[in-house]
Amino acid sequence: METSPLAPARFPDLPVIEGVRFASVAAGVRYTGRTDVMLVELQEGTSIAGVFTKSATRSAPVLDCQAKISAVSAARSALLVNSGNSNAFTGAAGEQSVQAICDAVADTLSIDAARVFTASTGVIGERLPHDRIIAKIADLATGLDAHGIDGAARAIMTTDTFPKGATAEVDIDGQTVRIAGIAKGSGMIAPDMATMLVYIFTDAKIAQADLQALLATLTDQTFNCITVDSDTSTSDSLICAATGASGVDVTDSAGFTKALHDVMLDLAHQVVRDGEGATKFVEVRVTGAATNADARKVGLAIANSPLVKTAIAGEDPNWGRIVMAVGKSGAQANRDALRICFGNIVVAENGWVSPHYTEKAGADYMKKQELTIAVDLGIAGGMSTVWTCDLTHGYITINADYRS
Amino acid sequence: METSPLAPARFPDLPVIEGVRFASVAAGVRYTGRTDVMLVELQEGTSIAGVFTKSATRSAPVLDCQAKISAVSAARSALLVNSGNSNAFTGAAGEQSVQAICDAVADTLSIDAARVFTASTGVIGERLPHDRIIAKIADLATGLDAHGIDGAARAIMTTDTFPKGATAEVDIDGQTVRIAGIAKGSGMIAPDMATMLVYIFTDAKIAQADLQALLATLTDQTFNCITVDSDTSTSDSLICAATGASGVDVTDSAGFTKALHDVMLDLAHQVVRDGEGATKFVEVRVTGAATNADARKVGLAIANSPLVKTAIAGEDPNWGRIVMAVGKSGAQANRDALRICFGNIVVAENGWVSPHYTEKAGADYMKKQELTIAVDLGIAGGMSTVWTCDLTHGYITINADYRS
Repeated sequence: METSPLAPARFPDLPVIEGVRFASVAAGVRYTGRTDVMLVELQEGTSIAGVFTKSATRSAPVLDCQAKISAVSAARSALLVNSGNSNAFTGAAGEQSVQAICDAVADTLSIDAARVFTASTGVIGERLPHDRIIAKIADLATGLDAHGIDGAARAIMTTDTFPKGATAEVDIDGQTVRIAGIAKGSGMIAPDMATMLVYIFTDAKIAQADLQALLATLTDQTFNCITVDSDTSTSDSLICAATGASGVDVTDSAGFTKALHDVMLDLAHQVVRDGEGATKFVEVRVTGAATNADARKVGLAIANSPLVKTAIAGEDPNWGRIVMAVGKSGAQANRDALRICFGNIVVAENGWVSPHYTEKAGADYMKKQELTIAVDLGIAGGMSTVWTCDLTHGYITINADYRS
Repeated sequence: METSPLAPARFPDLPVIEGVRFASVAAGVRYTGRTDVMLVELQEGTSIAGVFTKSATRSAPVLDCQAKISAVSAARSALLVNSGNSNAFTGAAGEQSVQAICDAVADTLSIDAARVFTASTGVIGERLPHDRIIAKIADLATGLDAHGIDGAARAIMTTDTFPKGATAEVDIDGQTVRIAGIAKGSGMIAPDMATMLVYIFTDAKIAQADLQALLATLTDQTFNCITVDSDTSTSDSLICAATGASGVDVTDSAGFTKALHDVMLDLAHQVVRDGEGATKFVEVRVTGAATNADARKVGLAIANSPLVKTAIAGEDPNWGRIVMAVGKSGAQANRDALRICFGNIVVAENGWVSPHYTEKAGADYMKKQELTIAVDLGIAGGMSTVWTCDLTHGYITINADYRS
């Protein structure tokens, strides 16, 4: 698979986060010739927060993480993630696999199995060959390395065409707090949440409950604002681990909140940029709605519309389809108050095409790789921004192939 | 455009409906070398009922029809429909076009403009060249013919690859009541309602209010159960006209209700069979839900999922994506009670793949052109059936082309 044309130029230099060590290995879960399992060790005193898919058919690892995540514990912890098999819809066997992996990690690292968090991503409904993973845990433990985050980012990929990483530093009272995150995801991407696995590490000091609340709020502004294909995964997991090693307390710190937000938004955008078959990165900015919720409805209706997405793929400034999507969204809308812009070009206003708009200006704009569609509903102050990509032959080719 | 592989073998023989005459003409609204306007004259005493899109950006003709439809009138009436331009999001000019057309039809046929119902289908946001239509109204009036329904079915087509017609006869107390209907639609098809125009004629005798209530009920069981691409049109209109010429009162007649239902379902299925790029016709049958509404949520989540639809296109029995769609639907679901079948093949049950299922059996089934996906949620008695098609390269090609 060729790298997405929307990919960043290169994987960023991610800083060492004190208190976190990484290892990855090729266990042959499904893929051959590549790494497919990552192990992360988190030092004693780390706060771990998580946000997970709301799917009614979520995977065994997700159910296990949800049961464990809110425990306040200062004990040493671990994350283990495999790609190639999602261990979703695998009945009681799925739960047994999770338990077996957690027990093996706990034994090898001499930690409590209740402090091992797992995730699996890949095909649904096939038994996870957990013995292959367990057979590699000793190797993983031996290979743990503070510099191993790049390899971890690669081991969790499935149909991704590039590894995803993001970082931020924030100075608080003259001291530096570091954040480094990795993600995977490219198809089955929709809010609540995208089909993603995201792991973010920081040396900040913050209590588990505070980190959990912050993570939930920021997820709504980042990962819950992206959509590739409106399909929601059974495996979505976002875990944020704060080791406290910097000694800097970030509770209620605006600087830390902004830095964490920026890392999350960067990773969310990278997931869209790796959307299956994507050739355009699209920001849909909705303003003037009756409520923020209405604005979000309109944004998602546009971002998920196959007709809008295929028009973008074809570089067709078919703004009539945006009118259609506004109309079908269920949000309060008034034809004559609606204003639609492509970038800075006013396309439609006062219930009709703008008198200044030319088809040539629209067509030229659509040739760009990064597009902004702005819709003002002209009703009140509700606003929301959603990010998506186009719908191309590439998406069909990837997903109509036999069992990706 | 080649005819859809899912098209019926031929256009049905539609009976003459006493009291209805049809004409069609090439007015050059947008297309050249084909008819694009139909006129229908309905005799005095005809009851006219209608169901329309709920889009907040619905077209000028839809708004005009909605304002007129519930008037109880015995006066002679007319329908005028053009293809090629939807007269949607065309500001005040759109309303002026509708008025001009209604006035011209009223003058030519010597009827009240309040009894002229129009519809327009095609591109959104471009001014309707109504002069071209008005210039042909005298020709249309001269050409009115009780046998003209086939030509009318062709004149209303846009991206359709075949004209759509259906008919039924019902005997009531030894007398025959006839129903004949035509439809257009192939993309921008989703419930509430599909992007469709549907015209159904019958010689039954029934009051307007009774016909309206019946039509609304049957629409929920037919046209509101189909989806091609989840996109809702700004122009959807369904009109049913009962001339009363048979003299047979069908108020509360179960036989008439069934016959009308069958005609509507036949037309609805034909719209799916002409879904843009479709190569498979898919029935999604959901049972065992907590409520009928929950069953419908699950059915639409499956039928609208790009990942399910591309798997079907690829003849991949990827039932994990059906599990995903159930999970994301928002309906109450219990992994271990879920049962999924392809036709008669039990694929998954008890929270996992069925022990009797083989990948070969699933792959062989998916090669069929007509598929049934049955999902039993195992919770209660709620049920719903939805019809859809696959998502193929053909859909992308049709819709990523410049301005269809």
